[in-house]
Amino acid sequence: MNVEMEIICVGNELLIGKTLNTNALWMAKRATSLGIEVNRITVVSDDIDEIATVITETLKRKPRFIITTGGLGPTFDDKTLEGIAKALKCKLEVNEKSLKMVREKYEAYVNQGKIDKVELTPPRVKMAKLPEGTEPLSNPVGTAPGVLTRVKATMLIAVPGVPSEMEAIFEESIVPLLKKEAGNVTFFETSIFADNIMESVLAPLIDQTMHANTYVYIKSHPRGEEDTPHIELHFSTTAKDSKTAKTWLGSAVIQLTELIEEKGGKTRPQKKKE
Amino acid sequence: MNVEMEIICVGNELLIGKTLNTNALWMAKRATSLGIEVNRITVVSDDIDEIATVITETLKRKPRFIITTGGLGPTFDDKTLEGIAKALKCKLEVNEKSLKMVREKYEAYVNQGKIDKVELTPPRVKMAKLPEGTEPLSNPVGTAPGVLTRVKATMLIAVPGVPSEMEAIFEESIVPLLKKEAGNVTFFETSIFADNIMESVLAPLIDQTMHANTYVYIKSHPRGEEDTPHIELHFSTTAKDSKTAKTWLGSAVIQLTELIEEKGGKTRPQKKKE
Repeated sequence: MNVEMEIICVGNELLIGKTLNTNALWMAKRATSLGIEVNRITVVSDDIDEIATVITETLKRKPRFIITTGGLGPTFDDKTLEGIAKALKCKLEVNEKSLKMVREKYEAYVNQGKIDKVELTPPRVKMAKLPEGTEPLSNPVGTAPGVLTRVKATMLIAVPGVPSEMEAIFEESIVPLLKKEAGNVTFFETSIFADNIMESVLAPLIDQTMHANTYVYIKSHPRGEEDTPHIELHFSTTAKDSKTAKTWLGSAVIQLTELIEEKGGKTRPQKKKE
Repeated sequence: MNVEMEIICVGNELLIGKTLNTNALWMAKRATSLGIEVNRITVVSDDIDEIATVITETLKRKPRFIITTGGLGPTFDDKTLEGIAKALKCKLEVNEKSLKMVREKYEAYVNQGKIDKVELTPPRVKMAKLPEGTEPLSNPVGTAPGVLTRVKATMLIAVPGVPSEMEAIFEESIVPLLKKEAGNVTFFETSIFADNIMESVLAPLIDQTMHANTYVYIKSHPRGEEDTPHIELHFSTTAKDSKTAKTWLGSAVIQLTELIEEKGGKTRPQKKKE
C-alpha cells in the first residue's frame, strides 16, 4: 500500500513569483526516492486563516505525512504555527524543550563571540511557542526548531523555509520516519529521448507499452515543438529491489524503442543534465 | 477590491521532484505585476479524479481567475480537460473551432514539408475535445489549444504545460483579461540587504515600520544563518501609479534603514541577481 504525503509551502514570496519553489522540488524528490507517494503540493500565503484552512483540508484527505515548510522564524509574518494551532483548535504555548533548543543556539553564539549575551526577547521566545501537545525537532543549522505532531493517522511536521535548515531537519528527523513507513520500496526512473516522431504519433505507442508493462509509468515531455519534435520519455516504477526495477524498466524501454523505430523515429539514451 | 487568482499545476513530474515548477513562478510573477493577487498554487497528479476534485474545491473559493497548466496534449496522461469536464458535470465533445485550429497546425506542417499529409488521428482529435460550452484559445507556438470557460463569476482557463506554449497563450489571451479586471493597479517592489543584525532583532523594527507605512508589506528572507546574518528585506505595495508606489516604498525603506543602523546593523541596496 502506498504511503502518501502532501507538502504545504507557506510564503507570499512564492505567490508573487519572487521565489522559485525549490523546497517543494527537493522534498518531493527526496520523499519519492524513498518510495513515498507525494499526492499534492499546496502553496499558501502568510495568513493564519489560509494556513489553518489548508491544514484542515489536507488532514481530511488523511495522508500519512503532511510536511509544511516556511513560516517558523521570529518575524511577525512567520505564522505557520499559529495556523496549525488554529487548525488543531489548540493554543500556542512556550514549549520547554523547544525553548531549551533556542536558548542553546544563542548560548553558542555568545561562546563564539557573535553576540554579547543571551537575551530571550519576544521574537526569540516566539520560535519556541508551539501548538500544545507538539514536539520540537532539533534544527542542526539554524535557530527555529521544526515541529512534529500526530493527528489520528497523520504525522504533521513543520520545517523552516530556509533551504539549508529545511534540508537538515528533513534528513535528520523526517527521513527515518519515511523509511520506517515505506519499508524497502524504492522509486526507480530512467529517460530516453525520441526524435523525428511527433507526440501525437507516440501517444498510442506509449499506451501499448504501458499496457504490456503494468508496473511501469511512462510520461512524455515535449522539449521541442510538435513540428520539430524532441521528446523526453520518462519511465518510472516503484519496486522492492533494484534488480526487479531494472528488469521492468528495461523491458518497457526496449519495447517502446522498437515501436518508435518502426514508425521512423530515433531514440537515444538520456544525456546528463538535459 | 483585489482581483484574485489561483493556479493549478497538473503533472506527476512536479510531484516526484523531477521538474522544477517554473511555470507557477512565471505565471505568479506575471499576474502579480498586473495587480492580480495570486492566493494559492496547487500541484496535482495526472489523475482525472484528483484534477476534478481540485477544480471543484478551487471554484468554491470563487477566485476571479483559475489558471490550470499541463495535461492538454495528445497522450493518455493528458487528462486536464477530462478533469474539468468531470468537475463541471459536462461531457467532452469535439469542438469545431478547436478542431479547425488543430487541423490548421498540421496543414502548416505539411506546407513546411515536415509531414506528408494531414491525418486527424485519435490523439490529434483528442486535443480538440473540449468540455461542452468552453472556448478554445489559439496556441501561437504549439498544437494543443488553450481552453476558457466561465463558471459563475470565475474565469477558468487551461493552458498547456510546455513553458513556451503556456507563456504564449498567457500573453496573447490571458493578459488582456487580467488587465481589464485589475484596472490600472500595479505591483511594485524593492529590496535592501541588512548585515550584522539578527532576524530576531530585526523583527520588532519591521513591525514598527509596517505600522507606520500601512500600504507597504515587508518580508525578511534570511540568506545567511541567524549567527552570521545576511537578510534580504523585500518591500512591496500595490498602487495606481509608480510615483505613489515609489513614495510609499521609499518612506518605508528610509525608516527601516534608520532603525537598523540605530541597532548597529548595516544596510545596502539590492544588487542585481542576488
